[in-house]
Amino acid sequence: MAPQRRKATLSSLGEFGFLASVLGAVGRGRGVRVGPGQDCAVVKSATRSWLLTIDSLVEGVHFRRQWLTPYQLGGKSFAINASDIAAMGGVPRYALVNLAVPAEYPVRSLQRLQSGIVRAAHDYGAAVVGGNLTGSAQLSVTIALVGECPERQVTRAGARPGDHLFVTGTLGDAALAVARLQQRRPVPPAVLHRFSTPAARVQAGQTLVQRGWVSAMIDVSDGLLQDLGHLCEQSDVAAWIAAGKVPRSRVFRRLRAEDRLALAGGEDYELLCAVPPRFAARLRQMRRVGGCPITEIGQIVTGRGVRVVDSSGRLVRIEAGGYDHFASRSQAAPVD
Amino acid sequence: MAPQRRKATLSSLGEFGFLASVLGAVGRGRGVRVGPGQDCAVVKSATRSWLLTIDSLVEGVHFRRQWLTPYQLGGKSFAINASDIAAMGGVPRYALVNLAVPAEYPVRSLQRLQSGIVRAAHDYGAAVVGGNLTGSAQLSVTIALVGECPERQVTRAGARPGDHLFVTGTLGDAALAVARLQQRRPVPPAVLHRFSTPAARVQAGQTLVQRGWVSAMIDVSDGLLQDLGHLCEQSDVAAWIAAGKVPRSRVFRRLRAEDRLALAGGEDYELLCAVPPRFAARLRQMRRVGGCPITEIGQIVTGRGVRVVDSSGRLVRIEAGGYDHFASRSQAAPVD
Repeated sequence: MAPQRRKATLSSLGEFGFLASVLGAVGRGRGVRVGPGQDCAVVKSATRSWLLTIDSLVEGVHFRRQWLTPYQLGGKSFAINASDIAAMGGVPRYALVNLAVPAEYPVRSLQRLQSGIVRAAHDYGAAVVGGNLTGSAQLSVTIALVGECPERQVTRAGARPGDHLFVTGTLGDAALAVARLQQRRPVPPAVLHRFSTPAARVQAGQTLVQRGWVSAMIDVSDGLLQDLGHLCEQSDVAAWIAAGKVPRSRVFRRLRAEDRLALAGGEDYELLCAVPPRFAARLRQMRRVGGCPITEIGQIVTGRGVRVVDSSGRLVRIEAGGYDHFASRSQAAPVD
Repeated sequence: MAPQRRKATLSSLGEFGFLASVLGAVGRGRGVRVGPGQDCAVVKSATRSWLLTIDSLVEGVHFRRQWLTPYQLGGKSFAINASDIAAMGGVPRYALVNLAVPAEYPVRSLQRLQSGIVRAAHDYGAAVVGGNLTGSAQLSVTIALVGECPERQVTRAGARPGDHLFVTGTLGDAALAVARLQQRRPVPPAVLHRFSTPAARVQAGQTLVQRGWVSAMIDVSDGLLQDLGHLCEQSDVAAWIAAGKVPRSRVFRRLRAEDRLALAGGEDYELLCAVPPRFAARLRQMRRVGGCPITEIGQIVTGRGVRVVDSSGRLVRIEAGGYDHFASRSQAAPVD
């Protein structure tokens, strides 16, 4: 007899063995008529309108295995999709998961990865209703997420000159974590947490959209300047932001981390929104929305592009653009 | 000045440049309120129930670049998802596309890949409503598809002893194509076409489900024996099939291709269904359903497992199981 293998891997277990072993745990949820294990899931909606989004995390592009546990990778894969749903004021409901996994990947890791997804889905009130497992040289997790659509539709395209710009939470921690991981420097736990376990601002997004307080919204995934650039382009407006007002975490400030990381870092998964003047004062006063701090950082104006100004109104140049998988940092186009 | 590059690649164009250049072509379709370019798509349904599925094609696992043009790869990626919708009697409606692409992949190829997806979606009456583009060492296309759900729900789990087994179209051509491509032998165009441009049996699936003629159904993607095995397991029944009755194409028969390819080959994307006795005679007589030939191949019985018998009722052993990305052929468990 051959010596027993110490760890079960996918090639020893096979696709169907694995699917059978993990899919039992998922698929329970409100409105789920048929869960995983069929050709399709069947779901029933409370509303007729749906939000649909898809996003992917790829090893070597978005993460390294030593940076994220499989469980964290699963949770993060769900959260980045929930963040897109949040940016439209919706509620995550049904997830489809595609796992592309090297044959030598341990089954135990895969189970933890799956647990991370299922747990995150559960925490956001959603259910994993189907999935696909495929062999691949490179580990990647792709999730398609279906969300309930609010009555009001808010996209990136509604900002008007005079609107005020607000952002939830703090920016820059995730990029600071990546920078320090790359430099092999220690990363404070609170900062690492923002990279490994981002929180989608679902409640804040819902409140902002339902109350009609926002004219345009986007989630900050590619860096504030780049995502604000998308919002401006699609709204056919320009914007300025006050560098000093961009909210940073206490640890970020204590470490005197570079402005660039907060302004152009990426992976923040906060919400950036344009707020018409008649609601801005109220939001400024509230300071929190949907349980999350919200801060005014600038304004929408006529024209094109995004400018960053310091406290005396002078233009600040930010060197690096946001994250683009296909361009090296030096090739990235300046944002303003 | 550096010499001009002959071909635009993703690394020269960047993700946003590419997305902007291709996404204009998509997103138009019935019920599409907000198309690509936002955090989510917004779609509106005619029905409250939906079918959801996700599937992926990975280079080196499901295809090699020299076997499929980018346009064919796009079309096939859509069709394999449409086939899952067909197996539940549904209609494909909204697709989300995740492209994982090496930086050196030519933009022109990517545009053709995208065109293949958009065209296939259009041909099936669906729309591409959103997407994501990510860098990757390995080319892969993942599509999540939302379909309209029929009133009647048919899964893999409804087959009863006494039901007759029918299969649409012919089996084995796709596996024959792959076998010959791997052996570097010429592949007849009709056989290659079945591999490169599979057709999802959407109309047949709809008719079979709407008329109430099927008790269980599955699409044949991993090979007849393996997929029949899934259907039997989920229905808690056994089945036998007559090897000689499994429909093969004219070219397949002319080439005297191995039985194994038709019985266990995979990638056929035909529908396999269990038909209660009171409808079997009618279907046998009709010979076609939803524009597609349909053939009786066996029967559901009590017990466990799947047996293949020859014309005199003797057991036939089929060596290889269906396709499992993580097991080599020799490791694959015998099917019966």
